Formats: sequence, C-alpha cells, structure tokens
Amino acid sequence: MNTKKHLTIALDAMGGDAGPDMVIPGAALSAIRHPELRFLLVGDRSRIAPLLERHAALKDRSDILHTDVFVTMDAKPSQALRQGRGRSSMWMAIDAVRTGQADTVVSAGNTGALMAMARFILKTLPGISRPAIAAIWPTLRSESIVLDVGATIGADASQLVEFAVMGEAMARCLFGVERPTVGLLNIGVEEMKGVEQVKEAGRILRGAELPLEYTGFVEGDDIGKGTVDVVVTEGFTGNIALKTAEGTAKQLATYLKQSLTRTLVSKLGAWLASGAFAALKDRMDPRKHNGGVFLGLNGVVVKSHGGTDALGFATAIDVALEMVRNDLVSKIKTDVEKMNDVITRATAQDKQPETTI
Amino acid sequence: MNTKKHLTIALDAMGGDAGPDMVIPGAALSAIRHPELRFLLVGDRSRIAPLLERHAALKDRSDILHTDVFVTMDAKPSQALRQGRGRSSMWMAIDAVRTGQADTVVSAGNTGALMAMARFILKTLPGISRPAIAAIWPTLRSESIVLDVGATIGADASQLVEFAVMGEAMARCLFGVERPTVGLLNIGVEEMKGVEQVKEAGRILRGAELPLEYTGFVEGDDIGKGTVDVVVTEGFTGNIALKTAEGTAKQLATYLKQSLTRTLVSKLGAWLASGAFAALKDRMDPRKHNGGVFLGLNGVVVKSHGGTDALGFATAIDVALEMVRNDLVSKIKTDVEKMNDVITRATAQDKQPETTI
Repeated sequence: MNTKKHLTIALDAMGGDAGPDMVIPGAALSAIRHPELRFLLVGDRSRIAPLLERHAALKDRSDILHTDVFVTMDAKPSQALRQGRGRSSMWMAIDAVRTGQADTVVSAGNTGALMAMARFILKTLPGISRPAIAAIWPTLRSESIVLDVGATIGADASQLVEFAVMGEAMARCLFGVERPTVGLLNIGVEEMKGVEQVKEAGRILRGAELPLEYTGFVEGDDIGKGTVDVVVTEGFTGNIALKTAEGTAKQLATYLKQSLTRTLVSKLGAWLASGAFAALKDRMDPRKHNGGVFLGLNGVVVKSHGGTDALGFATAIDVALEMVRNDLVSKIKTDVEKMNDVITRATAQDKQPETTI
Repeated sequence: MNTKKHLTIALDAMGGDAGPDMVIPGAALSAIRHPELRFLLVGDRSRIAPLLERHAALKDRSDILHTDVFVTMDAKPSQALRQGRGRSSMWMAIDAVRTGQADTVVSAGNTGALMAMARFILKTLPGISRPAIAAIWPTLRSESIVLDVGATIGADASQLVEFAVMGEAMARCLFGVERPTVGLLNIGVEEMKGVEQVKEAGRILRGAELPLEYTGFVEGDDIGKGTVDVVVTEGFTGNIALKTAEGTAKQLATYLKQSLTRTLVSKLGAWLASGAFAALKDRMDPRKHNGGVFLGLNGVVVKSHGGTDALGFATAIDVALEMVRNDLVSKIKTDVEKMNDVITRATAQDKQPETTI
C-alpha cells in the first residue's frame, strides 16, 4: 500500500474532444471525491485558469503547468512524438510522473500518441518486452480485466505470459483478490485448439508459481459472463473484441428503444418501467467503466475515452488512484521476476527429451 | 439462377444436441415452406422412421439413407475423419452432394468434423487455398456477412482477398445486391494502422475489378452498425468477435430482465410493454440467424447451431437453399478467376521499383 499521504495526479488538460472544458470539471468532481489529492493541470493557462474560477475546491489544490502545444486527436504517434516532444501538454504530464512531481497521469488524448510518449518517457519495466493496454470490462459477475486491447499487434507465448502477470497485478489492485483467476482467450476450450503461442502460454502458466489461478482457455462469450478476473489476448484480437462488444451494446440499446416506442401501450409500459430502464442505463453507462490502464511501464498512465464527459473523466482518475494506492508498479516488478524464473524453467524443460506423448 | 425444379437437400439427421428429435421436426417445417423440396435424411432408420410418421408431408418427400454410425459433438476432427469415413451420417450426407444425389447439405453436428469432412469429400474450388465459415450477422441496418468465423487460424493477404470474393458472392445470393460493400476488419480506420497482411489485402482490393465495393477498413463496432455488407477477417479474430457479441447480447438481456423485475411498478410496466419485448426478443432470436455457410468448396454445406430447435434448423435449411438457388458455387468460381488476375497484377506491380513513398 502506498502510504504517501498527499498524492498528486498530472492531467493532460488539453486531451479529449472537449479539452479543458471536460477535463477541469472532471478534476473538480474528483477533488470532491478525493479530499487530499493534488492536481497538476498541464495545458494552456488562458483556458484552464478561467475554468478553475468556477471550482474553488479544485483551484486551491491545483498547479497549472503552462504550455500552448498540444497533440491533436488525429496525429500519428510518430508525428506526435516528434512535434510534441518536451513541450506538449501530453508529454509534460507524463514527464511529471518520471520526475516524481506527480504520482500518476490521466489523458483523454490520442491513444497512439499517449502510448508512444509513455513508452519513450517512462520506459518499460525490466523483464517486460512490450506494454499493454488493459480495459475494465463490466460482466454479469462484476468486472473483469481484458488485455491487451490495442497497444501492440501480435504476441508470442512469453509476451502473453507477461500480459497475464500484469493483468493479475492490476486485478489484485482493483478487485482486492489475492489470486485472481486468469484465462487465455482462444477459439475453443479444448486443449487441442487454438494458435501455437496461446497453447504454449497456457503450458507455461499451468506450471507457474505466481499469484494467479490459471483456469485455461476462455472463449469470446466468457468475457461478458465474467468467467475469469483477467482475460489475456494480443492487441489486435483484444481491440476487435472490445469494439465488437461496444457495437453490440449500442445495437441492442437501439433495438430496445425502437421496440418500446412502437405502440402507445408499450410507451406507457416503458414510462412505468422508467426506473428500471434508468437502472439499466446506469449499469451500462460507459462513463462508469472509463479508463484504459497502460501496464508494464515505470509509472501508471491511464487513458480516458476522448469523448467522455466530466463524470467519465473522474472515473478514469479513480482508476489511476486505485492503481497508485495499491502499488501496481511494484506488484508487477515483483511478479515479473517470478515469471522470468518460470519462463526460464519452462524453456529448459522444453529442451529436455520427451518421455511421454 | 439454378433452374432445376426439384431440389434435394441432404440432412445429417444425427447431428446436433438432440439429433433426429430436432432435425426431423425442423425438416417438417421446411417441407411446408418449400413445397417442392425433397429430403435425404441420413442416419439411424429406427429413430428417423417413427418421427416421420408424425409428419406426413415430409414423409412423402423423404428418403432415408440408413447408417448407425455418427460423429459425436466432442470428437476431434481428425478422429471423426478416421472413424466416420465412408459410413457416418455426416460423411454420407456430405457425400450425397458430391455424387449429385443432393444439391446441398445441412448438419447441426460438430463444426470441426464437418469442415474436415467437407474439405476432404468436396475439395476446395480451384484458386481457393482455404475454405471459410461465413456467419450471417444481424445489424442495425439489416444483416451482414462476417467471415471467416473459425475455419482456419490466420490468413495472408491473398487469402483475405479470397474471403472477400467468397463473401461478396454469398452477399449477392443472400441480399440480391449487385455490388456488395466489403470492409476489412482492422483496429483503426486510418490506412496506417493494422497488420501488414490486412493492409496488403486492402491495396489489392482497392484496385480490383470485382463485383464488390471495397470501402476500406472497418472496426469491431462497425459490424453491429452494418457499415458494410461483408466484413472480412481471419478465423481466430472472427470467431472471438462472434462469440464476444453473443456474450454481450446475453449479458444485456440478463441486465434487462434483472432491472425489470426489481419493483412492482417496473413489473407492471414490463407487462404493458410485453408486446414490445416480444418484438425485441423476436428480432434478437438466434434461431432466425442460424446457419454458418462453408465457402470455397465444390458444394454448399451449411452448419446449423448444435443447440438449436426445429425452427432454427429450418432457418439453416433456408440459407442452404438460398445459396443453391442463386448458384453460389458458380458465382465464386467466376469471381475467383477474376481475382487471380487481380492478385497476379498486384504482385507484379509490387515488384516494380517504387517511384513514390
């Protein structure tokens, strides 16, 4: 547990579709929720300062780090890195974590640019070959962590094992369980099925002494069921799965609306059941599940959805704080060392002659 | 258009969780829908014959091809191929298409075994390196075709182009459009993103003179929106996307039920709106979208969901007939020839020195 009393969060005030108009009210909500949190607001002072006037509690606990350079939502990562280096709000907010000025950082900006800068500034942890983005996925059971949802395309067996370890550490921070259940996403639960690297990762995890319960392969429909705490996959498939689920949820919400407005009686019924629909809407509210966590770096970086509002942004801040308070980075560091022993042993075993088939 | 008057469909009577108890009533429904269709029921006569007694209209137009060997739902494909060769209901039903006894075949059996046998018996079409399974996906616009949803893992650029051509041909049969829109599933719509083989397939399709409208990359959430008629991806990602969507749909249906039964007033509201919910349920009914089409073979093979009922099985028969009546196989054959010219030209161009970057 991080015992530091006053945490400081750096916010990329210029990120997201609405920039400071969304970020500052979001920070203000967060200031109420976390009375001891301090804020480092990075961006254009002429836009931030007037907004702070409306939020006295936030203003008292904020510092503005001025810059008038910011990364646009459609910039290519390489371009953002070149042009935004050292002086963009996104860069400076991440850099505050490196220098220790801030304990964590949240940005609603361009995902690709944020990941490129975060990797460049904070570097990956020893033993981690590639970072991952983890999504918090609402399930029938409660919530699960799904990673990678788009940091990098493809992953070999040992990278999948790294993802499993990072996801397990995040689950311990977020859900407070000692040994989270972990499954590898695959296209069949039988051991025979699936791609070679997924099967190999399964073999490594099965024999590993790590703070996780490896339960085997899971399929796409297991994510929503909440079969496991952590679902591990490579970034291409993870991103497609995440967006497909978002698309399906929107599709069904539209169907529901269309059905309920068809006749007068159904409209009346819908009106009577409006409390139920409000509860449903609340449960499905994407603002309550906002915040993709960048895992595997020397620091906690959280990506908020670019189109979210103040409430959603405050959720992303909650996620970042939860990770810092529970020492996500040291948990990953410790477990990666254990993991490397496991992989070394697994590889050594592979080289021994087979005695059984 | 297939002008043959009396089509015959071969049915693997032993396939699916319930076997003949589901297949025969499904065929009976189909017999009413398609008054000129003939049925070849392959399986255990002692189980099929008594069921036929209840369905006179079906009985008159059916022949039973007896066998008491059948492939179990959990058999490995290689095992099924070895043990079920020549004499299992699944094998004999597919073989009836090869010999011309039947025009098409439907099975609710084990997917892996069905694909292995179908490839072995019917062979892939000239110019097609690997078959695909296409799913009919309900969307906000109407329906789309998504392929491959699990026939094979991974696909290079020219295999993705093959999938595009097979999907386009199926869309022309199913939706009656002349130039279906086709998109490649990717993790970003910008041309820069995504895996190399997807980008390369995009370049080939962009310049191709084929009966399709290539619209570029689509993301996971575009599937449910119905952005394009045909969504092309490799089998691992396609299968995960399909199952994730199924899982999300179930999850939301459960949420809805839970919300509506929370209070007395919401229960009353739900009762008043029950017509609307029935319409919604009908729209989401998986039995109305049953039938995975095996594409790229010398014949039309349709896989029904193993757990479906008679209504769902009748839908799978509808799909198979639609494909045969609209000459799916010849459409694919013609377009694959065009495609091969396109790929040859694209490859030749790649070998020329680059003049622009």
